[in-house]
Amino acid sequence: MNSPTKHNRDMLGRTDTVSLERALQLLQENLVPCPGEKTTLPLAETLGRICAEDIFAPENLPPYPRSTMDGYAVRAKDTFGASEKLPAYLEVSGEVCMGEFPEHGPQPGACYAIATGGILPPGTDAVVMLEHTVAIDDSMIEVVQAVATGTNIINAGEDIGASEILLPAGHRLRPQDMGLLAGVGIENIAVFRRVHVGVISTGDEIIPFDTAPVPGKIRDTNSVSLAAQIRLLNAKPTFYGIATDDEESLTGMVRKATAANDIVLLSGSSSVGVRDLGEKVIEKMGSPGIIVHGVAVKPGKPVIIARADDTMIFGLPGHPVSASVSFDLFVRPAIIHVSGLADDNLPQHRIIYARLRRNLNSASGRTDFVRVQVKISAGKEPETFPILGKSGALSTMVKAHGYIEIAEKLQGLKEGEMVEVRLFD
Amino acid sequence: MNSPTKHNRDMLGRTDTVSLERALQLLQENLVPCPGEKTTLPLAETLGRICAEDIFAPENLPPYPRSTMDGYAVRAKDTFGASEKLPAYLEVSGEVCMGEFPEHGPQPGACYAIATGGILPPGTDAVVMLEHTVAIDDSMIEVVQAVATGTNIINAGEDIGASEILLPAGHRLRPQDMGLLAGVGIENIAVFRRVHVGVISTGDEIIPFDTAPVPGKIRDTNSVSLAAQIRLLNAKPTFYGIATDDEESLTGMVRKATAANDIVLLSGSSSVGVRDLGEKVIEKMGSPGIIVHGVAVKPGKPVIIARADDTMIFGLPGHPVSASVSFDLFVRPAIIHVSGLADDNLPQHRIIYARLRRNLNSASGRTDFVRVQVKISAGKEPETFPILGKSGALSTMVKAHGYIEIAEKLQGLKEGEMVEVRLFD
Repeated sequence: MNSPTKHNRDMLGRTDTVSLERALQLLQENLVPCPGEKTTLPLAETLGRICAEDIFAPENLPPYPRSTMDGYAVRAKDTFGASEKLPAYLEVSGEVCMGEFPEHGPQPGACYAIATGGILPPGTDAVVMLEHTVAIDDSMIEVVQAVATGTNIINAGEDIGASEILLPAGHRLRPQDMGLLAGVGIENIAVFRRVHVGVISTGDEIIPFDTAPVPGKIRDTNSVSLAAQIRLLNAKPTFYGIATDDEESLTGMVRKATAANDIVLLSGSSSVGVRDLGEKVIEKMGSPGIIVHGVAVKPGKPVIIARADDTMIFGLPGHPVSASVSFDLFVRPAIIHVSGLADDNLPQHRIIYARLRRNLNSASGRTDFVRVQVKISAGKEPETFPILGKSGALSTMVKAHGYIEIAEKLQGLKEGEMVEVRLFD
Repeated sequence: MNSPTKHNRDMLGRTDTVSLERALQLLQENLVPCPGEKTTLPLAETLGRICAEDIFAPENLPPYPRSTMDGYAVRAKDTFGASEKLPAYLEVSGEVCMGEFPEHGPQPGACYAIATGGILPPGTDAVVMLEHTVAIDDSMIEVVQAVATGTNIINAGEDIGASEILLPAGHRLRPQDMGLLAGVGIENIAVFRRVHVGVISTGDEIIPFDTAPVPGKIRDTNSVSLAAQIRLLNAKPTFYGIATDDEESLTGMVRKATAANDIVLLSGSSSVGVRDLGEKVIEKMGSPGIIVHGVAVKPGKPVIIARADDTMIFGLPGHPVSASVSFDLFVRPAIIHVSGLADDNLPQHRIIYARLRRNLNSASGRTDFVRVQVKISAGKEPETFPILGKSGALSTMVKAHGYIEIAEKLQGLKEGEMVEVRLFD
């Protein structure tokens, strides 16, 4: 047999890992651009999608000046000087009906009843809110507070003016954005197509998760969890199958996935043979090839980041926990970049600050991600507890609410420190 | 014409609004339970769904003791006392091949090469990691650090033991949970069915958003944005149409929606007639009827919270901004409760702390939600700017990154204060 000793040390990047910061910088510098392909969708199907073009308003919103309060449409000057002690008296000579365009308005010294959203009748320029009036009878009110021109109305086009930009290219469509587009009658939206992510599991010991394993085999978990992580980012996963330790078949599988996707994930086996083979195959796919091989993080050290022409290829560790953390650190920002989303620099995760309830050691020069539970009790500060258990254990990821990061320069965190917990999606 | 004055004051709860805290308490006390209906889905389709039953492990994970490191499977006692200065010499008499069950193991004084994930061969009880060995030649290593029994291995069932609980009922399925289920070969999962939410728009002035409005009419935006807010929570929206100011037709529409959904939203019109009618119709649907009518919040004051037997009914304000905020405050927790999700008390939103760059006034006794933008510049604290513009304007929701809450007891917030911004999903 061959001893894996020297071979492995080189191959796993154990001798030349880069820092997390450097790895992320190299990733950013080598990211493939958004492919820019557009697809047009009916408005109702655009939630979470990214605008592929600037969208302009085809019409004014609102189309006519409207009241923003329940009350009375008036000429502002008719209320001049009105107060509780010296109210202005106005005749109620009409009403604005919802859904109807008021052809006529009140005479000077008179007013129209109007509800929120009602169109301002001709001649009026302000609305006195109901609370600032006293009804004398059905046809007369006291106005107890003066209004200025424009008070309690929204002018035509004041929300959005015709030909104004509604949403810029690169904007992610949220519910309120869809509401605005409905408001100006835009029925179809050009969005970028979803990011396509190919997933390949590798390893002679790996079998499809729904196959009963004979001794020595284990079920494929990474293709299931990675596909779900991809879906959470609104991208489209495609599973290409499980590759064994055969160069020709792996090359064919990776080539097929690389041709059809923006991003390809090889969920690495723990098998030394396949691990080395994966590298070799990735290097063959295109240029510049492997740009990062081994990062000083735990878990996730043996990650490979590569670019083959217009496709990003990631070699993720076989350990489920390492694969999941590597995905979050490296694949997630790649998917977001390729999606065409304009960066708003805002936090992308739910976080909570909690008091650490146990000392945590970490090697200086390495960034650690520690899975934790968070406990919230009434009247107490949130507390967080590191999950004990073997690092490769799937159950530790399942018991965890999130993780904390121990920065590269630190040698650990002390019990009692306040830490930021990044909660799982 | 009828003056809306007195009528409105009562009907809008202007005389008897309750505090936000009280409204949320009344909501909690009156929530319909999770209907408990189950549906069985293939594992790949369960992302974000809620487990309807406790899920137990049908088998051990891992099924056999495995190595967690690349290195050599040994008898721990053969390494006793080994150090850099006084290494233990072990013969490498074999190798564990990935994907194969090792029928034989090394003799005492010998070891097998093993990769991460390899099954421990008979007779061995620990793994010496590669980094703690020196290869002498192809068949002999020096071990430079002793290992104890169990070092660098994960025992059978140590991740998950057969018949152990994997996930409890009420758990929301995340990617890693799906990975764990795949790991033990569970192909189909019982989850609660989605929460069904019926949406009705009301108002004589409201027309479908894709219809060109004649003067006086405005496009229906709330049904579009509310459906998207519902979908973000993994619930299923159904739109029942736009109701006009006709008691019989509105009653029929609400009755139909109430019969078929867990939650019904009437997106209220600004029309006084429909507003009053909405209340009347909601009260007819079942008991206990309206439990909250008017909350001391801005925006969103005229919200109605009702329960009609097994269905929650919400009357949301017609203003798009108010409808959206009311949804977040009241409908969102109702959907989450009815979904069967077990409450983990963790924050549900992305937040960021930022320095407020403008004074904000607020009436004491009212909780205000102010839409803000957040600006992040390198090397500076995050800053936040309230969005100026008319309160009903949809564009203010679109320009905003999120909102800040001004608590009931405060009269405002001062420029320079650090505030918590809840970012929009």
